[in-house]
Amino acid sequence: MGTSLILLAAGKGTRMNSDLPKVLHEVAGAPLLAHALRSGQALDPERIVVVAGHGSESVRVSVEDWAPEATVVVQEEQLGTGHAVAQARDALRGAEGDAVVLYGDTPFIRPETLQAMAEARATHDIVVLGFEARDPGRYGRLVTEGDDLIRIVEFKDASEEERALNLCNSGLLCAKADLLLELVGELSNENASGEYYLTDVPALARERGLSATVVRCDEAETMGVNSRADLAAAEVAYQDRARQDALETGVTLTDPATVHLAFDTVIGRDTVIEPNVVFGPGVTVESGARIRAFSHLEGCHVSRGAVIGPYARLRPGAELGEDVRVGNFVEVKNAVIGEGAKVPHLSYIGDADIGRRSNIGAGSITCNYDGVFKHRTRVGEGVFVGSNTMLVAPVTLGDQSMTASGSVITRDVAPGDLAIARARQDAKPGFAQRFFERLRAKKASQKG
Amino acid sequence: MGTSLILLAAGKGTRMNSDLPKVLHEVAGAPLLAHALRSGQALDPERIVVVAGHGSESVRVSVEDWAPEATVVVQEEQLGTGHAVAQARDALRGAEGDAVVLYGDTPFIRPETLQAMAEARATHDIVVLGFEARDPGRYGRLVTEGDDLIRIVEFKDASEEERALNLCNSGLLCAKADLLLELVGELSNENASGEYYLTDVPALARERGLSATVVRCDEAETMGVNSRADLAAAEVAYQDRARQDALETGVTLTDPATVHLAFDTVIGRDTVIEPNVVFGPGVTVESGARIRAFSHLEGCHVSRGAVIGPYARLRPGAELGEDVRVGNFVEVKNAVIGEGAKVPHLSYIGDADIGRRSNIGAGSITCNYDGVFKHRTRVGEGVFVGSNTMLVAPVTLGDQSMTASGSVITRDVAPGDLAIARARQDAKPGFAQRFFERLRAKKASQKG
Amino acid sequence: MGTSLILLAAGKGTRMNSDLPKVLHEVAGAPLLAHALRSGQALDPERIVVVAGHGSESVRVSVEDWAPEATVVVQEEQLGTGHAVAQARDALRGAEGDAVVLYGDTPFIRPETLQAMAEARATHDIVVLGFEARDPGRYGRLVTEGDDLIRIVEFKDASEEERALNLCNSGLLCAKADLLLELVGELSNENASGEYYLTDVPALARERGLSATVVRCDEAETMGVNSRADLAAAEVAYQDRARQDALETGVTLTDPATVHLAFDTVIGRDTVIEPNVVFGPGVTVESGARIRAFSHLEGCHVSRGAVIGPYARLRPGAELGEDVRVGNFVEVKNAVIGEGAKVPHLSYIGDADIGRRSNIGAGSITCNYDGVFKHRTRVGEGVFVGSNTMLVAPVTLGDQSMTASGSVITRDVAPGDLAIARARQDAKPGFAQRFFERLRAKKASQKG
Repeated sequence: MGTSLILLAAGKGTRMNSDLPKVLHEVAGAPLLAHALRSGQALDPERIVVVAGHGSESVRVSVEDWAPEATVVVQEEQLGTGHAVAQARDALRGAEGDAVVLYGDTPFIRPETLQAMAEARATHDIVVLGFEARDPGRYGRLVTEGDDLIRIVEFKDASEEERALNLCNSGLLCAKADLLLELVGELSNENASGEYYLTDVPALARERGLSATVVRCDEAETMGVNSRADLAAAEVAYQDRARQDALETGVTLTDPATVHLAFDTVIGRDTVIEPNVVFGPGVTVESGARIRAFSHLEGCHVSRGAVIGPYARLRPGAELGEDVRVGNFVEVKNAVIGEGAKVPHLSYIGDADIGRRSNIGAGSITCNYDGVFKHRTRVGEGVFVGSNTMLVAPVTLGDQSMTASGSVITRDVAPGDLAIARARQDAKPGFAQRFFERLRAKKASQKG
Repeated sequence: MGTSLILLAAGKGTRMNSDLPKVLHEVAGAPLLAHALRSGQALDPERIVVVAGHGSESVRVSVEDWAPEATVVVQEEQLGTGHAVAQARDALRGAEGDAVVLYGDTPFIRPETLQAMAEARATHDIVVLGFEARDPGRYGRLVTEGDDLIRIVEFKDASEEERALNLCNSGLLCAKADLLLELVGELSNENASGEYYLTDVPALARERGLSATVVRCDEAETMGVNSRADLAAAEVAYQDRARQDALETGVTLTDPATVHLAFDTVIGRDTVIEPNVVFGPGVTVESGARIRAFSHLEGCHVSRGAVIGPYARLRPGAELGEDVRVGNFVEVKNAVIGEGAKVPHLSYIGDADIGRRSNIGAGSITCNYDGVFKHRTRVGEGVFVGSNTMLVAPVTLGDQSMTASGSVITRDVAPGDLAIARARQDAKPGFAQRFFERLRAKKASQKG
Repeated sequence: MGTSLILLAAGKGTRMNSDLPKVLHEVAGAPLLAHALRSGQALDPERIVVVAGHGSESVRVSVEDWAPEATVVVQEEQLGTGHAVAQARDALRGAEGDAVVLYGDTPFIRPETLQAMAEARATHDIVVLGFEARDPGRYGRLVTEGDDLIRIVEFKDASEEERALNLCNSGLLCAKADLLLELVGELSNENASGEYYLTDVPALARERGLSATVVRCDEAETMGVNSRADLAAAEVAYQDRARQDALETGVTLTDPATVHLAFDTVIGRDTVIEPNVVFGPGVTVESGARIRAFSHLEGCHVSRGAVIGPYARLRPGAELGEDVRVGNFVEVKNAVIGEGAKVPHLSYIGDADIGRRSNIGAGSITCNYDGVFKHRTRVGEGVFVGSNTMLVAPVTLGDQSMTASGSVITRDVAPGDLAIARARQDAKPGFAQRFFERLRAKKASQKG
C-alpha cells in the first residue's frame, strides 16, 4: 500500500516569457520539477505520475533524468488542476495507497512536510497543506473548524470574514488514490473560468461524510515560481538556506553571498571556500580542502587537503586525490589526478590519468581530440612535464620520466627517460634592431 | 521650433575627492553626463549646450563621444546655476523653441519625464521638475497654489511651514529659451553665497505676470552624485533596474545581483546569464544563448544558441555566429567566428576570421602583432587547428585544412592540407632519473 | 611604565565545529587574533602575553607571525577567564605599568578605544569596556553609579532591574598589572560553572576600597565570533567598513559589495576597482591605476597608471611599474615589471625581471622550475618576446632583442638579436582531407 505521487507540470508559465516549459527552469542547477520530485521521492513512492502539458516532450526527457521510474501523462488541454489530476487515472489504476498531489513549480516543500501529510491521513480522509501567510493577499483561504477543514475558498469568492483568515492553501493535497480520482471525476466546471478545481475536493468529500484536515508548513516552503523574478528569488532563497547549512556543518565560506551551491553539493568540515566560487551539480569536496576565489566546479571530486584555484575549472569526471594542487587558468575534465600531483598554471588536462606527485608544467595540454575521437593520456608517478608540453593522446609517460619544455610528445616515453622534441636555438645577429627600425620607419611614412 | 538642452556640467565635485571632473565618473559603463545627454537626446533637441567648468577639456572630449552635435561652453568661474545657464547665451542665440536645463550629475531622469515637462509648457511659461521626497531634509521646497508654482525656496531660507512641504526641487527647469536667458540675466547675487541661483527664476517670472508650474517625477530619478559613495549607490540603483528589466523581457539571470550590465546592453529572450558576468558597453546577445559564469563581454555580438564561458572574455569587435562555443580562458578581439565554430580552451583570437564549424585547439594563438602593426588571420571552414598552434599573421588556412599540434604557422595552408612545423621527438634514456638524482643531491648538500 | 597586553586565546570554539583553534579563523585575510593584536600593538605595549589553550601549538606559530615579541603561555585547563589571566603571572613579573585584557575572538576593538581605556586609568583603578547594546539579550550588565562601576553582573544572576540596563560588558578590562594579577588570584570558583570569572574583578576591587569605571565603545567593536556564521558576519562587517573607507579616500569601487579587501590593503586616490576583485594580504596600489574585473592580487605593488586584468593574478613579489599592463589569464609572481611593459594574455611570469617597454607575447612562459630549484629570467628593455616563447631560466634577453613565436629559449640572447628555435613548416598535401574521411568512416562503422 505504497504512496503515489501526482506531480502537476502542465502549465505554460506565460509570465516566464519563455519557450521552455516553466517546470524546466532551474534553481541551484536542477529544474524546478526535479526539486519537487526529490522531495516526493523521500516518501519512497510506489508510483510517480507526472502530468505534462506545455512542452510535454521536453518535460518527458527531463523526467527520465530525474525520475526514470515515473509515468508521464499528457494533459492536452489545460482545464484546471482537478482536470490535471484526472489525467493520472490510468496510470494509478489499481493503486491501493494514498496519492499526494505536488506541483512542478513549487520546489521547496520539505520531505518532512510530505511525511506529516501522509501521517495526518491516519485520522482524516483528505489532507491539505496550508500555511499561515504573513500577507495572505489573494491566496485561497482554508476554512476550518477545530482540526477539520471545511472548505477551500478562492480569494475572489471569499466573504470579508473569510478574507480575514490568514491560513492559506498551498495546493498540495493527499488522499487515498482511488477516492481522489473518484472525487476529481465529480468536479464541476460551472464557475467563472470554466475550469475543474482541485480546491473543490475537500468540500465534495465532506458532502459524502468524509473528513478533511490541514497540515501546516512554513510559508517559505510554498514559494512558487511564476516569473523570472520569482525564479531569481527562489534561487536566492535556496542559496541562503544552503549556505547556512554549509556554515553549520563546519565549512568556512569567507563571503557566503558570493558562493553558489548546487542542489547536491557536498562539502566537508574545515574546507574553506573563498569568495566567488560556483558549484555546478555533482560536486563533492572532502574535509580540509581549500577552494580559492573564482573557481568553478562541476561533477567532480576533490579530496582532503587539495587546494584548487584561484581560477580553476573542474569539469565532470575530474577526480582529484589528496593534497592535489590545481592552479590558475587550469581546466580539468574526465581526469584522475593522483595524490600530491600539481597542475599549477594555464593547462588543459582532459581524458587523462596523472600519477602521484607528478608536476605538469605551465601551459601544458593534453591533446585529447583528433577532430572525431577522444583519446587518453597517461602520465606516471613522479613525472616532470616541462612547460608547454603537448601530450598528443593516446600517449603514455612512464614513471619518473621528464619532457623538455616546448616538446610535442607523440610517442610513449619510457620510465626515467627524458623526451625532447625541440628545434635548435639560432641567433640572427642584429635582426631585431633592423626589423624594428624598418617597421617604425614604415609606420612613420604611413602617417607622413 | 525645436527644443534646446542646457546641460550643466561645470561642478568640481569636491566631495568626489578626484582629479576627474565629477560628470565624467561612470555609471554602468558611461559617464554621468552621458546618461543625462541620452535622456535629453530622446527629445530630439535642436541644440545641445554643455556648460563645462572644472576639467573642461576632458569634458569636451567626452561630449564629443556622446553628443558630437553639442556645443561646449566654459563657465570660467562657478558663480551659481543661474550664472551657468547664462553661459549658454551665445550658443542659443536665435533659438526659437524651449530650453530644458539638465544636470550632468543627475543621470536617471527618464525621457518620459522630460517629455512631460515639454508638454506642460502648453499651459505655463516656466516648468519646474519636482518630486515628493520621502525625507525632504535640506532640499529646496516648491511652494505651490493649485497647479501654479509660486516660488522655489531654499531650505535655509524656508519658514517652518514651508519646511513642512515635501514637494522638493529637482533643479530641472524648462522655459522658452529666450525668456530663460532674459530671466537669468536679471538674477541677483545678493545672497549669502554671492551666487546667481536658477531657483529664483520662477519667482522672477511671476513678477512679470508669467506663470509657472510643477511636473512631478519619481524621487529615484532625481538621484544625484556628490561622492564616491553616491556613485556606488547610483550604480546599484541602475543595476537593480536594469536587471529587473532583463528578467521581465524573458532573460534568466541566475543570481541577478552578480550580473553587471552596461547602459546599452541588449539581451534576447531565453538567454541564460549565469552568476558573475560583467557586460561592458556595446554588447548584444541574441535569444537562446548562454553566458556562463565569470565571463566578461565588451563591444561584441553573440548570436542565437552560442555558449560562452565560463571565463570567456569577448572584446570589442568579437562577432560570434550561431551556436559558436567560446570556452574557458579564451579571449576574442576584433574577430568574426562563424556558425558552429569552437574555441574551447586557453586561446587568444585577435584580428581574425574563423570559418564555420572550425575547431581551434587548446592553447592556440593568433600572433597578430609584430611589435608595430597588427595583421589578420583567416581560417577557412571546417578547419582543425591542432593544440598550441601559433598562427603568425598575416596567414590563411584553407577550408578543411589542418595543423599539427605545436606548429608555428607562418605560411598559408592550402585547403585539405596538413601543415606541420615540429621537431622530431628524441629520447634521452635514463636522463630524467640522473637529472633529478643530481639536483636532489645538490639540494641536500645545500641544506647540509 | 609601559602597558602590557594579555590576549586571551585559549577557547576551543566548539560552535565553530573545526579542528582549527577559533582564534586562527580568518577575517579579511588575517586570523582573528591578529586583528586583536594589531589593535593592541597601537598602544606600543611593553609586553604582550598570549594565553593559548586549545591548539596552542598552532596559536604559537601564528603569534610568531603577527607579534614575534609576544610571550605565549598555555592554559592547560580552561577554568574561566580569571584563570586564563592568571596564567600571565610569570610573563608579567616585574611589569610596572597597566595590563589590558583583550580577546582573540573579538577582532574589531579600535586602537582609539584602547587608548581611551588607558586614559581612564588616570582616575580609576579598574577600567572596563562597555557598550550600549541595541538588544542587550543575555550579555552581562554593568551596574554603575555616576562614573563608578559597582559591579558586573552575569545575565543569569541579574535582577529584573539589572536586566533592564542596556550597558553591557565587552569583557575588556584594564588595571595596573600587579593589581590585576593579585585580584585574579583572589577570585573564587564557587559558582554554578566552577570557573574563575574575570568579571568578578571590579567588585573585588571595590571591596578593597579601589575604584572602577566604564569606558564606552560602539557595539560594533565588540562583535565576537563563536560560529562560522559569526565569522562570515564579521567578514561582512569588516568589508563594509573597509569599502566605505576606500570610497572616502577617493577610490572608485564600481560595485563595492563585490570587492574583497584585506586587513592591510592600501589603494590610492582615483584608482578604479571594477566588480569582482579580490585583494589578499600585502597589496598596495598607487593612484590612478585600474584593477579590472575578476582580478586577484596578493602581496604585490601596482604603480600609478597601471591597468591590471580582467582576470589577472598578481602573486607575492609582483612589483609593477608605472603604466604597466597585465592582461587576461596572466599570472605574475616574484617578478619586477618595468615601466610601460606589457604582458597582455595567457602568460606565467615567475621569478623574472622584465625591462621597461618590453612586450611579452601571448602564451609566453618563464620556465622557472627545474623540478627542484627555481631560476630567474631577465628580459631587458624594449624586448619583443614573440607569442608562446618559453624562457627556460636562468636566461637573459638583451635590450631591444626579440624572440620568434613558438621558440624555446635556453641560451642568452644578445641585445638587438633575434632568437629563433623553430622547425620548418612542411605541407602534407591532401592529408587533412584523407585523415578526416578515414576517421569519419571509422566513426560511422562503429555506429553501424
